[in-house]
Amino acid sequence: MAAGSEFGSILRLTTWGESHGAGIGAVLDGFPAGMELSQGDIQKYLDRRKPGQTAIATPRKEADEVEILSGVFEGRTTGTPISLLIRNTSQRSRDYGNLKDCFRPGHADYTYYSKYGFRDYRGGGRSSARETAGRVAAGAIAAKFLGELGVSLCAYTKAIGPVSIDESRFDAALITQTSTCMPDAAADREAMEYLENCMAQKDSAGGVIECRITGVPAGIGDPVFDKLDARIAQALMSIGAVKAVEIGDGTEAALARGSSNNDAFYMDGDTVSKRTNHAGGILGGISDGSPILCRVHVKPTPSIFREQETVDESGRDRTLLIKGRHDPVVVPRAVVVVECMCALTVLDAMLANMTSRADVIRDFYNTRKQ
Amino acid sequence: MAAGSEFGSILRLTTWGESHGAGIGAVLDGFPAGMELSQGDIQKYLDRRKPGQTAIATPRKEADEVEILSGVFEGRTTGTPISLLIRNTSQRSRDYGNLKDCFRPGHADYTYYSKYGFRDYRGGGRSSARETAGRVAAGAIAAKFLGELGVSLCAYTKAIGPVSIDESRFDAALITQTSTCMPDAAADREAMEYLENCMAQKDSAGGVIECRITGVPAGIGDPVFDKLDARIAQALMSIGAVKAVEIGDGTEAALARGSSNNDAFYMDGDTVSKRTNHAGGILGGISDGSPILCRVHVKPTPSIFREQETVDESGRDRTLLIKGRHDPVVVPRAVVVVECMCALTVLDAMLANMTSRADVIRDFYNTRKQ
Amino acid sequence: MAAGSEFGSILRLTTWGESHGAGIGAVLDGFPAGMELSQGDIQKYLDRRKPGQTAIATPRKEADEVEILSGVFEGRTTGTPISLLIRNTSQRSRDYGNLKDCFRPGHADYTYYSKYGFRDYRGGGRSSARETAGRVAAGAIAAKFLGELGVSLCAYTKAIGPVSIDESRFDAALITQTSTCMPDAAADREAMEYLENCMAQKDSAGGVIECRITGVPAGIGDPVFDKLDARIAQALMSIGAVKAVEIGDGTEAALARGSSNNDAFYMDGDTVSKRTNHAGGILGGISDGSPILCRVHVKPTPSIFREQETVDESGRDRTLLIKGRHDPVVVPRAVVVVECMCALTVLDAMLANMTSRADVIRDFYNTRKQ
Amino acid sequence: MAAGSEFGSILRLTTWGESHGAGIGAVLDGFPAGMELSQGDIQKYLDRRKPGQTAIATPRKEADEVEILSGVFEGRTTGTPISLLIRNTSQRSRDYGNLKDCFRPGHADYTYYSKYGFRDYRGGGRSSARETAGRVAAGAIAAKFLGELGVSLCAYTKAIGPVSIDESRFDAALITQTSTCMPDAAADREAMEYLENCMAQKDSAGGVIECRITGVPAGIGDPVFDKLDARIAQALMSIGAVKAVEIGDGTEAALARGSSNNDAFYMDGDTVSKRTNHAGGILGGISDGSPILCRVHVKPTPSIFREQETVDESGRDRTLLIKGRHDPVVVPRAVVVVECMCALTVLDAMLANMTSRADVIRDFYNTRKQ
Repeated sequence: MAAGSEFGSILRLTTWGESHGAGIGAVLDGFPAGMELSQGDIQKYLDRRKPGQTAIATPRKEADEVEILSGVFEGRTTGTPISLLIRNTSQRSRDYGNLKDCFRPGHADYTYYSKYGFRDYRGGGRSSARETAGRVAAGAIAAKFLGELGVSLCAYTKAIGPVSIDESRFDAALITQTSTCMPDAAADREAMEYLENCMAQKDSAGGVIECRITGVPAGIGDPVFDKLDARIAQALMSIGAVKAVEIGDGTEAALARGSSNNDAFYMDGDTVSKRTNHAGGILGGISDGSPILCRVHVKPTPSIFREQETVDESGRDRTLLIKGRHDPVVVPRAVVVVECMCALTVLDAMLANMTSRADVIRDFYNTRKQ
Repeated sequence: MAAGSEFGSILRLTTWGESHGAGIGAVLDGFPAGMELSQGDIQKYLDRRKPGQTAIATPRKEADEVEILSGVFEGRTTGTPISLLIRNTSQRSRDYGNLKDCFRPGHADYTYYSKYGFRDYRGGGRSSARETAGRVAAGAIAAKFLGELGVSLCAYTKAIGPVSIDESRFDAALITQTSTCMPDAAADREAMEYLENCMAQKDSAGGVIECRITGVPAGIGDPVFDKLDARIAQALMSIGAVKAVEIGDGTEAALARGSSNNDAFYMDGDTVSKRTNHAGGILGGISDGSPILCRVHVKPTPSIFREQETVDESGRDRTLLIKGRHDPVVVPRAVVVVECMCALTVLDAMLANMTSRADVIRDFYNTRKQ
Repeated sequence: MAAGSEFGSILRLTTWGESHGAGIGAVLDGFPAGMELSQGDIQKYLDRRKPGQTAIATPRKEADEVEILSGVFEGRTTGTPISLLIRNTSQRSRDYGNLKDCFRPGHADYTYYSKYGFRDYRGGGRSSARETAGRVAAGAIAAKFLGELGVSLCAYTKAIGPVSIDESRFDAALITQTSTCMPDAAADREAMEYLENCMAQKDSAGGVIECRITGVPAGIGDPVFDKLDARIAQALMSIGAVKAVEIGDGTEAALARGSSNNDAFYMDGDTVSKRTNHAGGILGGISDGSPILCRVHVKPTPSIFREQETVDESGRDRTLLIKGRHDPVVVPRAVVVVECMCALTVLDAMLANMTSRADVIRDFYNTRKQ
Repeated sequence: MAAGSEFGSILRLTTWGESHGAGIGAVLDGFPAGMELSQGDIQKYLDRRKPGQTAIATPRKEADEVEILSGVFEGRTTGTPISLLIRNTSQRSRDYGNLKDCFRPGHADYTYYSKYGFRDYRGGGRSSARETAGRVAAGAIAAKFLGELGVSLCAYTKAIGPVSIDESRFDAALITQTSTCMPDAAADREAMEYLENCMAQKDSAGGVIECRITGVPAGIGDPVFDKLDARIAQALMSIGAVKAVEIGDGTEAALARGSSNNDAFYMDGDTVSKRTNHAGGILGGISDGSPILCRVHVKPTPSIFREQETVDESGRDRTLLIKGRHDPVVVPRAVVVVECMCALTVLDAMLANMTSRADVIRDFYNTRKQ
């Protein structure tokens, strides 16, 4: 779609809202009728996106309470649009000083100004990471239904700067307990030290997020342009600060040979299985029944507290010193966003798949009670 | 869109066709009226996709001649759908042997079978790389118009297996002259040796393709889900065998610090410019006027001539030996596909951008002669 | 789009909300940046949709105050989604009695139940005419911008039951003054008598709404499926209770002969003009510069206060007596809905038209200051 | 979609081609895999669209043979795009005389010229009724599958000029036997006399086509903008020359009272049924299980053989005399087009309906063998 704030094919998400406007919201249309849904189902995902009480978290105090405005009746989805509203509560009018007419390096200030001729300079407006709250609210609903279909998603921080997790220490329970969302306590400690060092140097760090999706049956996804991996790539690259998306072995595949990269099929009882999963669960754009693995690379937070060279709206060179406080890394808070974008993408593909076979459709219509 | 074979928002591409069917085609709707277009404009891009006469090229002899069936009148586009047809000429009925019911590892045989309940086993059907001919035919048209708008695209092989080009030897003229499409003669020779070695070992290789897009003005792309980089990510990940997509510094950005990753703005005369281009020309999903840089990582050709472990449609373990001949690497032939997918994506975003400002629209309608 | 609550191609409207839920809303994406917009611009259209203090108006007291939640900054549209919220204030929990499990004849109770397996029985839920508040809020914004482009829209009641306006007495000022929205005081009086008679008989009436759109330049609309009249037909037939849509002479055209139905062209000074306008301003799906004329036929309000035969969710025959009060005719309140749907459709087509010619696009990109 | 030549949501049709270009075609994406399909299934619908050997049929001799270029393997649909090609065979280069720069009244010559800046003047180019061949080819496929789902469609000529069929003489077998496609032999004779009289006067006639769709279960269609009747309205109004669309009682509903217009529900054994069908099988945009009834009003053929007043591309007044021969009425050949557009619309809605309920989706994924 041309305008940018819509996602999905059968399951249609529209988000809206700016960092310092009245609120952030999402409308989810095409969600099937009859699933139980409460405010709490959504709130627990939003809470994962909120900053914790740690050294690396922004002090912005947003309650981020979601209100379900439509689409749920007597505790169940109705099949009509689910409208979700999260009021902004902590923003206040303040003096934006030179942010008002200067373009922050690494941010979208200049590009929005170029496109629209003017811009909401308060916290980046629509380009703020706050926009992702709408994605998370909607993604929580998709993830809940995926659970009922036997699909589970698990995203986590794989690396912050040069500090990577050790797969042998992987403990999923830690993801929601560590400040970094790393499933490895030792790596978490090391990463926190790295981040504190960054902050001491008025600098910031990037990192890597991985998502593992299990339980997707073989046959999900579409040919050519809407390959499941292509949809995931759009979904994840659309998250601000993401600069690379990998599926399965990703960049490593370019260095491999066919003999090692091909995943051999074998029968595991009655089930087609694979000896390895270099492909990351997707072949020819369609799921093969193995876990789907994807990974994103996130750039360092562009807001740093050093003086930076830039220009202003009048076309003059300027120096800019950003004040206030910002997270030295966006990775931990983006983990749940990655998980939610994967959920929306996979559920959409599973819905689309309901109409892929004539025999299934014939069975449905010829046996259903009118 | 649900069904998979459509791409774009204003500029709408639909492709069709299978490896061993009657032909491959594309319908391009939404292309503006009045651009000069001849069969030759398209043919020269298709010719870049054809195998050359080298050791690493498939011997399939497809003329790949394109016929313009509609949408062009008196040498100019009419604004209505441009239909393009490329007949398949070299396919012949033959004995598909065990390919008929065995699933080739690394191919889409099993996933298509899972999705649709049966499959066109001749050369992979719709999942064949031959499908990309339709993309190239349409992309050639987009690239031509982009040229008239001051935008040029240049894709090339950056690496094959472990052999990378040396940027200091970059010579764009070599891209269409080397067998590997590398812009570096020394790297080309080294890569050819590597590939001959792969072939001798009945194995295959992957590689990296990069595309540089220059002349895109600042302000192109859309917020949130349809960020220009998100659209490029979908466009490129949708090419078969691509396993990773990077923008700008890509995976390296995750290791950088904000102070080094931010690109400082400065005034270059009257023009806003950047000291560096780590961002790859896109900030917040919208172009910043710098060259757009993207990169894809391509897995090794899955068809290798060793015996492989697999299963068949009856759910039995089997061994499979693929006969015939296949390219030991798909990278060189995918270079023009990458360039064409970028062209389609960027032109679509530039068309969408025509309606981003009220003042532009008011000027257009209030000054035009009715 | 599959799910139903989205409209438009470049200008994308998503609406949400139920009769007795938290509220009604709309998200308008793709609206150009930089147009001045205030709450009042929208409120005045919503006020036209509200019942007046007349004999034929429902006593439901909804303030219908709209809140702009996003997409407007410093009094101008930002180019990002405009989110609009209208809280429901008058609905209260009450005993729905037999409406809870009975299907009201002429309403969507049974069909929603059939589709979704259960339904929001409070006031029709999503199928309520209250849903149109979101259309009107968004349509007001489109209409404002159309005004800046020289396009104006005027919808009015043409007939109620057997009472039609007399074109010779047409007075546009009366449209917002009469209870019927008729531009003819005498017809208004006669229609009110007819409606009072209907009410006395515990019955209801239908009618005809016409919309005249002037100032649309020639060349707006698209070929084949997205003909401007086809889009208008969908837009208008999607309004609840509409059972027929006509363009220009409409049903009369079927009785005419070519010699009388063809509109002769002639030069009116420098302007191509037409001697007549049987076509209603659209030829081949594209505007011809004459006023666009369309007409809808609206069925009588299905809620009547007589005992009616129906069935319930358990599959038993029942009799149903609807209590409370309902408008004996929906036509007057639907007039502004017709106008707003036309505004959304025409503006969308005018935006799409910005990319129809290569020369316009070349001029735009080659002359704009980067 | 912006560009105009695409239709449908899950079932996606793209058509292309001009009257005097290389051919006419259609690409149908999203059609389910596994339905048996032969060239003959499609050809028999195209043959219904061809002119017969009667006084009222154009002598253009088009074989209109369809070639299936993709999407069918071993006699069954594959789930990937079905590409259909109908070569134009009878067009020849000739002297277009004053048609080359004059705008024919009642045709799209002027509006296409206004939109695109130039136009294919040969037979109307893309705006020709020949465009509908692509719709019929695709619609034939949809109609076949609908048959397998228990849905049948029957379109016929209801009136030509002032001559209407008598419902009491309705004989469906006559539809494909009479020159007028009327299901009433007496009306057919009378209509033929009327048309011969028109021709003698160098004039043309319009008429009415009705379509009855039976077997659609209750619950098909979507709320708000994608109501089934709204989609049908777009589908039918998009057929050239259609000026009005009615559902059920249509324009008559505006004159009815609620007490007579409401269709009472009752139990017919285990089945919810209705005493009457004023609604035409659709309530609140969703099917109610009764036959769906729709009607279109078609204007007289604009090509008449009298001298007509018009203007040319240079902005001069001109008189125009169209030579050659044209059908004095387009109604009979449009009957199958109406049927096919209904088929495409209804099947699309039935596919969309597969994902309307959470329980259906859970059953599908939790019981299917992986």
